[in-house]
Amino acid sequence: MPKIPKSARQTLFKDLPELIGRQLRLQPGSAPGIEAHIPAYSGISPDDVQIEVYDYHQERYEHYQVEDIEQFLTAPRPEWARNRWINVIGLHPLVLSRIGRQFGLPSLALEDVHNVTQRPKLERFEEQNFLVLRSVSLSDGQLTTEQISLFQQPGLVITFQERSGDPWGGVRERLKKPDSRLRQRRSGYLIYALVDAIVDLGFPALEYYADRLEDLELKISEDPQRQHMEALHQIKRDLVTMRRVLWPTREVADHLYRDGLLELREDALMFLRDVYDHCLQLMDLTESLRETTGSLMELYLSMLSHKMNEVMRVLTVIATIFIPITFLAGVYGMNFDVIPELHWRWAYPAFWAAVVSIVALLVWWFRRNNWF
Amino acid sequence: MPKIPKSARQTLFKDLPELIGRQLRLQPGSAPGIEAHIPAYSGISPDDVQIEVYDYHQERYEHYQVEDIEQFLTAPRPEWARNRWINVIGLHPLVLSRIGRQFGLPSLALEDVHNVTQRPKLERFEEQNFLVLRSVSLSDGQLTTEQISLFQQPGLVITFQERSGDPWGGVRERLKKPDSRLRQRRSGYLIYALVDAIVDLGFPALEYYADRLEDLELKISEDPQRQHMEALHQIKRDLVTMRRVLWPTREVADHLYRDGLLELREDALMFLRDVYDHCLQLMDLTESLRETTGSLMELYLSMLSHKMNEVMRVLTVIATIFIPITFLAGVYGMNFDVIPELHWRWAYPAFWAAVVSIVALLVWWFRRNNWF
Amino acid sequence: MPKIPKSARQTLFKDLPELIGRQLRLQPGSAPGIEAHIPAYSGISPDDVQIEVYDYHQERYEHYQVEDIEQFLTAPRPEWARNRWINVIGLHPLVLSRIGRQFGLPSLALEDVHNVTQRPKLERFEEQNFLVLRSVSLSDGQLTTEQISLFQQPGLVITFQERSGDPWGGVRERLKKPDSRLRQRRSGYLIYALVDAIVDLGFPALEYYADRLEDLELKISEDPQRQHMEALHQIKRDLVTMRRVLWPTREVADHLYRDGLLELREDALMFLRDVYDHCLQLMDLTESLRETTGSLMELYLSMLSHKMNEVMRVLTVIATIFIPITFLAGVYGMNFDVIPELHWRWAYPAFWAAVVSIVALLVWWFRRNNWF
Amino acid sequence: MPKIPKSARQTLFKDLPELIGRQLRLQPGSAPGIEAHIPAYSGISPDDVQIEVYDYHQERYEHYQVEDIEQFLTAPRPEWARNRWINVIGLHPLVLSRIGRQFGLPSLALEDVHNVTQRPKLERFEEQNFLVLRSVSLSDGQLTTEQISLFQQPGLVITFQERSGDPWGGVRERLKKPDSRLRQRRSGYLIYALVDAIVDLGFPALEYYADRLEDLELKISEDPQRQHMEALHQIKRDLVTMRRVLWPTREVADHLYRDGLLELREDALMFLRDVYDHCLQLMDLTESLRETTGSLMELYLSMLSHKMNEVMRVLTVIATIFIPITFLAGVYGMNFDVIPELHWRWAYPAFWAAVVSIVALLVWWFRRNNWF
Amino acid sequence: MPKIPKSARQTLFKDLPELIGRQLRLQPGSAPGIEAHIPAYSGISPDDVQIEVYDYHQERYEHYQVEDIEQFLTAPRPEWARNRWINVIGLHPLVLSRIGRQFGLPSLALEDVHNVTQRPKLERFEEQNFLVLRSVSLSDGQLTTEQISLFQQPGLVITFQERSGDPWGGVRERLKKPDSRLRQRRSGYLIYALVDAIVDLGFPALEYYADRLEDLELKISEDPQRQHMEALHQIKRDLVTMRRVLWPTREVADHLYRDGLLELREDALMFLRDVYDHCLQLMDLTESLRETTGSLMELYLSMLSHKMNEVMRVLTVIATIFIPITFLAGVYGMNFDVIPELHWRWAYPAFWAAVVSIVALLVWWFRRNNWF
Repeated sequence: MPKIPKSARQTLFKDLPELIGRQLRLQPGSAPGIEAHIPAYSGISPDDVQIEVYDYHQERYEHYQVEDIEQFLTAPRPEWARNRWINVIGLHPLVLSRIGRQFGLPSLALEDVHNVTQRPKLERFEEQNFLVLRSVSLSDGQLTTEQISLFQQPGLVITFQERSGDPWGGVRERLKKPDSRLRQRRSGYLIYALVDAIVDLGFPALEYYADRLEDLELKISEDPQRQHMEALHQIKRDLVTMRRVLWPTREVADHLYRDGLLELREDALMFLRDVYDHCLQLMDLTESLRETTGSLMELYLSMLSHKMNEVMRVLTVIATIFIPITFLAGVYGMNFDVIPELHWRWAYPAFWAAVVSIVALLVWWFRRNNWF
Repeated sequence: MPKIPKSARQTLFKDLPELIGRQLRLQPGSAPGIEAHIPAYSGISPDDVQIEVYDYHQERYEHYQVEDIEQFLTAPRPEWARNRWINVIGLHPLVLSRIGRQFGLPSLALEDVHNVTQRPKLERFEEQNFLVLRSVSLSDGQLTTEQISLFQQPGLVITFQERSGDPWGGVRERLKKPDSRLRQRRSGYLIYALVDAIVDLGFPALEYYADRLEDLELKISEDPQRQHMEALHQIKRDLVTMRRVLWPTREVADHLYRDGLLELREDALMFLRDVYDHCLQLMDLTESLRETTGSLMELYLSMLSHKMNEVMRVLTVIATIFIPITFLAGVYGMNFDVIPELHWRWAYPAFWAAVVSIVALLVWWFRRNNWF
Repeated sequence: MPKIPKSARQTLFKDLPELIGRQLRLQPGSAPGIEAHIPAYSGISPDDVQIEVYDYHQERYEHYQVEDIEQFLTAPRPEWARNRWINVIGLHPLVLSRIGRQFGLPSLALEDVHNVTQRPKLERFEEQNFLVLRSVSLSDGQLTTEQISLFQQPGLVITFQERSGDPWGGVRERLKKPDSRLRQRRSGYLIYALVDAIVDLGFPALEYYADRLEDLELKISEDPQRQHMEALHQIKRDLVTMRRVLWPTREVADHLYRDGLLELREDALMFLRDVYDHCLQLMDLTESLRETTGSLMELYLSMLSHKMNEVMRVLTVIATIFIPITFLAGVYGMNFDVIPELHWRWAYPAFWAAVVSIVALLVWWFRRNNWF
Repeated sequence: MPKIPKSARQTLFKDLPELIGRQLRLQPGSAPGIEAHIPAYSGISPDDVQIEVYDYHQERYEHYQVEDIEQFLTAPRPEWARNRWINVIGLHPLVLSRIGRQFGLPSLALEDVHNVTQRPKLERFEEQNFLVLRSVSLSDGQLTTEQISLFQQPGLVITFQERSGDPWGGVRERLKKPDSRLRQRRSGYLIYALVDAIVDLGFPALEYYADRLEDLELKISEDPQRQHMEALHQIKRDLVTMRRVLWPTREVADHLYRDGLLELREDALMFLRDVYDHCLQLMDLTESLRETTGSLMELYLSMLSHKMNEVMRVLTVIATIFIPITFLAGVYGMNFDVIPELHWRWAYPAFWAAVVSIVALLVWWFRRNNWF
Repeated sequence: MPKIPKSARQTLFKDLPELIGRQLRLQPGSAPGIEAHIPAYSGISPDDVQIEVYDYHQERYEHYQVEDIEQFLTAPRPEWARNRWINVIGLHPLVLSRIGRQFGLPSLALEDVHNVTQRPKLERFEEQNFLVLRSVSLSDGQLTTEQISLFQQPGLVITFQERSGDPWGGVRERLKKPDSRLRQRRSGYLIYALVDAIVDLGFPALEYYADRLEDLELKISEDPQRQHMEALHQIKRDLVTMRRVLWPTREVADHLYRDGLLELREDALMFLRDVYDHCLQLMDLTESLRETTGSLMELYLSMLSHKMNEVMRVLTVIATIFIPITFLAGVYGMNFDVIPELHWRWAYPAFWAAVVSIVALLVWWFRRNNWF
């Protein structure tokens, strides 16, 4: 009996129990807000949280790692720094709570930052926007998703990632160039650039699946193997995950486009429409790939059933050919006193001639009926 | 013929006939309202109904069991008790009717409290809100749901549970702490906390199913057994029940968020949005688990059909191998006068050599075609 | 070849041709309105139509059968009778037309009363409301539906039933009691009570199906028989009919709740909401039962295919066991001059020992692979 | 290999290539409007177009065929003829264009009249309404649909049919009677009557299918034949066509009801609601019949697979019964020197007794397991 | 094992990897706009881009190829040329950017022109409209789609095609005729004509599929071959592509109709409604063809399974006929001392008589049961 390899098993439930478990660290009925999570927390230490700061305006740009969180939070922002982007890597409730208190981030929103099972969403508060997105990436051919949270206030963007890993390399490069639009505009445009980069991560992932599927089709049409079906199942699951990420992301992009962002000029709305269009394209591609996956599964099953039918038919045909001649041999093994043929001179060669004729006739008949 | 164990049978119809039966205690055409149910009622006695009272405001908190219902209802509320929560456990129409008369609860709403087959819903009356929710819990690995009804009036919350069992332990704990938000706010916030606690009960239930499914996948991929399929069917039914509970609960949460609650401050609306988000997450997880269940059912069936095919193929191959050699043995059992081979010296060993060659040839051929 | 019993055949098309036929008594292109149906009508005679009259107000109640229609229609209504309910049993176009002329009922609406294939609907005219509902009932375990039409005018309710049969026993009882709400209120409340009674007829029907399904599950899991599948098919069809009735009924209830009825006080709107809730509950239960029916069909098919597989496997295993030993017997039936074994002393017992060993080995091997 | 009879093949694609072909007479990129179709047209001659004229008002009615189109179009309408209905049978672009110029019909609408593949639709122009409907009819048990186009202007209705054939016999009859509502009202009511007649054509068609299905069920449950399945497939396709016609027709009826027609009095709106209700009923019946068709297909397949299983099981059982006794015969055909049984006196009868016992045992065992 | 021919494999993924790949030429996080694409571009050279210019007003028309782009862009437009249509064939980012700068085309829109995987869409800017459409065409029986982008400004239309190939031959012809509506109207009407021509390309494509399907049905119903199924799969995929193109195109047409175009007179709105109607017709036809494809797949499978069943049944019947007579031959090959029949005179002929009787009986029985 073939066993499903361990890696496949891990995929099937990929994140489910872990994700649900996280929600459960607190009992139903506990108080809401990030503070309630602090006592029970047992993950990384506050010192493992990395904080990157980017201060910039049109003419100047500075970037540094924060060493001492408390000192950083209490120090005033340099006057020239009209725009600041704080990127927090690692989610510790204590750090979240401290940062939140400093910048007036809502406690419930911070709880969502901490419970990394949120659906992508956009919440608008009076003086700030709160976005939750999911970035997708491939590791060892499996899709993993990570929650990315963004707060936008006038002149300030705070982003939270769970793990190190960099969806924003391109944005950083553009930030360094004084003539890039990013430097000339304010926080709204930065948010757009960050969201755009996360959404576009879907394209390389889908390209990988398209290549895999093309490869699998070739293999299946030559010799269908059990592991091909497993690979197809895994791809299908990943594409379902992809769609589950994209669907609410599209809604977020739609809301952004319709209502705009803080500090985003009217003429930049079309950039947000562009993000929305990319979401639609990704969903279209995902659907195409899912249909292709379904077709390949059908191809696999039909190849397999074809093979099984082939085997059964050939074996049955062989059996059917031998049945009459075995009967004939039985007849001349009988011990009746009088069986005239037994005493003919050429009886034995005649028997073999009969056998060959019967076989030839049956083979011809089967061939004519396309049974063989 | 394998029998479905009794427990599985009980699950399939779990609550259906009982639930429908309850609706039927009264004939179609009877008068509406809780009063009409009193004469025909034959359940628990009024004395079995337990009533818990929680009086609290920011600085004081008292909690007691009611001994004499009539005395309790007629006694004035202590002046300091700005907020009161009455929790009624056990549904007797007489008691319901009496409490309803005292606090002005609508008779039709009380009939809904009594007929515990309501879908989760929110009804707004002039001076009060009426909520019906369903709490989910696991007993012996099976999902059971219980109807919970809540009335909200200014400074007063009345809740009705059918059975003892406590979804609100965490809320009670928080109520005891003077610095908790529950104590500082009024009835709207209490309702939020109670609803939140009931919704969050879904998380442990789903975690249980995720663990069960992971376990079942391991077992099925090793050796698929009939009871695995039964377990999957039961989980699927439970998840359908879960979804049927969550769907209208989501609507209730949406209404609450959009229209607010009595005595809930503007700034607390985001708490209700949080409840709504939890509903969405639970529905997402439920859908994921249902898809996983479906995948495991397919896995089970494909393992089974694989096994069956395997058996049939091996047996057919064995038969096919023996068919030609049996024919050969038949040939040399014939009684023709002249069969020259019969008189050869090494005929018998040659026969066996032929048999071995034929078998080897066939096995090689089958192997080459991957039939074996 | 098993025949479907006649009763099942009758169910499959139950009302379709008859219902469609009714629409066809008139050619496409005929004039609209009830009058056009009079010439071609060939059903019951006008004398077979029964008319019941209920006059009531808070203090007085009278009920009588109408003997002479013309006399009844022209006689003035007694002054005290603030509310009148006329219940017409039997649909003759002449009678319909005459009643319609007297009370100003729209001719098109009367045509709908006469063509009893209407979907449940609510039509509002200037001075009256027109409702079409379908009552469901069980006869011999089969669901039948009957169209019930109601007109409401200020102080007057006219209802039309096709067949005698009484969905409104409970309402009549309540009408006799001076202290019932029915007597104290006006026609709007009567309409509510009549609609409520018709909707609630769904509960006993669904309870019957729940019991039948529970019974069938027990039987199928013990020994699946063809008639079980037929019963399931019939139940499924009945539940589809049920849903087809409930869906537009829900819409009617929704309209009633949102727009109210003539002479229904504001505070009674919640009664109509109650009717709407009952529709939702019935639809929920119907869906549950349909899913259960589907599960039982799957159970039946899987039991059957399990049985078939079992048979084929056992028989194939038996064949496979006999194939090698039959070959062995054939070998020692050969007539070679030199077969040394033939002359051994213990050859025959040794042959049987070999046979037993081969069988034991195969049985052990099959058992180990769980093939047997 | 059974061939699908020609008639079935014709049905499968019934109108598709022909219909699409019609659209293609003009290259993509051609100018819009009916005029562009005149040069390429190669169908009927303009003289084959029949034009019927009905002039009527309350007291007078005249009906004649047009002999000379040009003369008819330029002649003034008699003064008394407040209402005129022109029915054009046969679609020649030249005639369409000429009529259109005379009465100010939009050129694009006339192109739609000419390309008879339009979905039913309603277009409102400033001074006229343009309706496209499809009438359904049965010829040789197959559904055919025909496009019917109607223009309504004040006091004037122009209708276009592709083929002769009369959906409006009933309307003509009513038009002749001075006391019919048609004569007393204006063009709006005529349009209603024409649309009503076309919609009601669906009822006889559906009645035919209901009868066919009832007949097929009887036959399939007795002896399923291949042609039954073909008949079901054809009915299914026809019902799909029916639904495709009804769906947009329902929308047209809805628009008519909501926005009314030219010259239709307020009080006649309920007639249009009646048309809408008939559409809903037809759709309901179509859905019922489609579900019934699906059930019968399942019945056919299950009868067939039941038959196949029956055959295989019986044959396998027969084979299994003969296998052990054939082995036994083989045993006593062996040539061992010492086989004691061979020399017993009653050995041969004992052998037959053993054979009978084995067969009886196996039959009993198979019967007990319900395998036979 | 049959291999899928290479051409089929190419179809399955047709454009997917290539299309996704294009999106990927830039890293996620890059700056938006066409300019960012210039450095990395490695396709055609700017000189390969062809530009056609059409200047026209009511009385004059000129058409020429642009030789020197820069010169053309900087030269003033002739005064008489009230309308200009520039058709750009070949997409080079440098050329796009240069043209965009000259005419004020939005940089993001140009990026969409360059990334030819856009869904059909309509974007309205202050002074211009931007449309993306997909034209469909057939090459070697396979559907290919090409992105066509259109900008509309007052008196100016700029269109971009990826490849040479001419969907607009008919429009050019009409442009040459001074009395055509195209010459008399302004840019809005030209846009309508261009869009109309692209949408109508769907009709010849669908006619091709209708013919193919008719042909395939004939072949499958005679002798189902593997390549028929492959052809059906390919047609199904093409129809899915068709639908994916048509769905958003319909939305574009709907928006155009509802909001109009620049410089399109009120009375021309109905032309846009006509385009919308054509989209609906194409979608209807596509759905019809898809259902037909599905039916043919079912036909293919049922023919195949019918064939397989036929083979198995015939072979099993043959085996069953030989089993009893082989047993009989075995019986008389036994070596019991006393088998009386062996010594009868007519035993051998009697044996053959018995064999013939048994075979005849079985054949009769099988025939009676319709098994053969």
